Amino acid sequence: MKVTIVGLGLIGGSIAIDLRATGFATEIIGVDNNPEHVMQTNSRGLCDEILPLKKAIQNTDIVILAIPVDAVLKVLPQVLDGISARTTVTDMGSTKAVILAKVARHPKRKQYVATHPMAGTEFSGPLAAVRGLFQNRTTVICDAEKSSARDLRRIDALYDALGMRKVYMSSTEHDMHAAFVSHLSHISSFALANTVLDKERDVGTIFNLAGGGFESTVRLAKSSPEMWNPIFSQNREHILNALDLYLEHLQVFRETLQKHKPERVIKLMRKANSIKRVLQSLNEKLSDKPRGAK
Amino acid sequence: MKVTIVGLGLIGGSIAIDLRATGFATEIIGVDNNPEHVMQTNSRGLCDEILPLKKAIQNTDIVILAIPVDAVLKVLPQVLDGISARTTVTDMGSTKAVILAKVARHPKRKQYVATHPMAGTEFSGPLAAVRGLFQNRTTVICDAEKSSARDLRRIDALYDALGMRKVYMSSTEHDMHAAFVSHLSHISSFALANTVLDKERDVGTIFNLAGGGFESTVRLAKSSPEMWNPIFSQNREHILNALDLYLEHLQVFRETLQKHKPERVIKLMRKANSIKRVLQSLNEKLSDKPRGAK
Repeated sequence: MKVTIVGLGLIGGSIAIDLRATGFATEIIGVDNNPEHVMQTNSRGLCDEILPLKKAIQNTDIVILAIPVDAVLKVLPQVLDGISARTTVTDMGSTKAVILAKVARHPKRKQYVATHPMAGTEFSGPLAAVRGLFQNRTTVICDAEKSSARDLRRIDALYDALGMRKVYMSSTEHDMHAAFVSHLSHISSFALANTVLDKERDVGTIFNLAGGGFESTVRLAKSSPEMWNPIFSQNREHILNALDLYLEHLQVFRETLQKHKPERVIKLMRKANSIKRVLQSLNEKLSDKPRGAK
Repeated sequence: MKVTIVGLGLIGGSIAIDLRATGFATEIIGVDNNPEHVMQTNSRGLCDEILPLKKAIQNTDIVILAIPVDAVLKVLPQVLDGISARTTVTDMGSTKAVILAKVARHPKRKQYVATHPMAGTEFSGPLAAVRGLFQNRTTVICDAEKSSARDLRRIDALYDALGMRKVYMSSTEHDMHAAFVSHLSHISSFALANTVLDKERDVGTIFNLAGGGFESTVRLAKSSPEMWNPIFSQNREHILNALDLYLEHLQVFRETLQKHKPERVIKLMRKANSIKRVLQSLNEKLSDKPRGAK
């Protein structure tokens, strides 16, 4: 299978590593406008060839867009315009409804499969790419009925090769869940970092006092603004809903604390504790044996 | 040195492991009301002997209180009452002002050194105890001028054995910084878990969609309510201030997002990104070679 990866960052680079290792891809073509990314990709031997977009999408089996979601909006129609009947297109974007609306009436819409692999780290660029980033994680495949059976099968096989479990839902459902389970975490982390940086103008104090707890809570505050800004913008409505519910829960915590009702504070924490169960099953899942390519 | 550890949880157990490994303690006496903790401590051989409090604090060099801060309020005066001139007392509590006020006029006040080692995990109990938990982290020593030179030297040596860096400040300063750098992280995490559990009543969805980001942000939501409730209660004023500033920063994020000002959203994230620098230096510090006991 010949695979073209557009965007050689953490996601694109990690896909290249896994698709080569599992034998799913026999040839990998890379596309990236950033000369530094191209250099780093070459230094790690992640792709067989780097080509300009127009050329890279000709005579290829799968085109994977692993670029920020604002770039997907621009590049996806161009890619659909430029491919032949042989080619399947997919994207890895963290939002789905806006992107799907953009190509809803494209004559080659059926050759496109909208997906979102729920995996990543706070790092970016091809040097951050790692083997097994997707292993045992979940990928969401959206509005599958709008894609043709051949193209769905191909993208299915691609995610099998990456070792991912597949979940099917509408783009609206996806965007709502993503707002709560992923996007909100990032905002809570960005705001927490800003709060502490605001108060603790002497960073030496943070440096001295930060235990492991603070570190894990603000880890996502290191994430790339260029990647997250368009996600926040495209998924604005769902994110505002999630933020409002979060603000409500923080207010409840605040009131309960202020009114000095320890029994109720305990109750709030006990409820939160039940997330343990969820994370435990998640970790058990993550420690499963790799399933490898089908 | 004979050391008595009151409270054989994550902190008490980890101290026992390190003090024995470094040779700082030649004899370790444990105290815990929880029969399960005692059993687990014995199964791991963490202490030489388990004794009732009254007996355990006689003829010992150092008494370490590693119990929730509400229990410290009750037990610390009893311990000071019961010790001879030979003994130094310290506590590991995450709040300091209320505890210090409680024993301000105790005739043996000078034998007590108030500290807070900034280390821990979201797990609890002696089975969670690990070697090197404190290594290269920071401990805060509060209102040192109220302790005698001999007792300060001893607690200094104790933290040297644990491999900790020492920072001196007033209990008020400590409580303010702890609210921002530690306690607020926990509340943001508890509230985030509750928000997602509230919205995603089908935990299968969280389970399916949670990537690494969500997991690290809600990690602290697994923390023990019994330990955190008295911390929130004793440090209420500072925590309410921290929460209010956090709510403000979240509101700013919300407004900026709602008014669709992408340049300003990017700016907020760039500011938050500067936490990278702080966390990086922290990690470089953590990868330092162990300093071991002096």
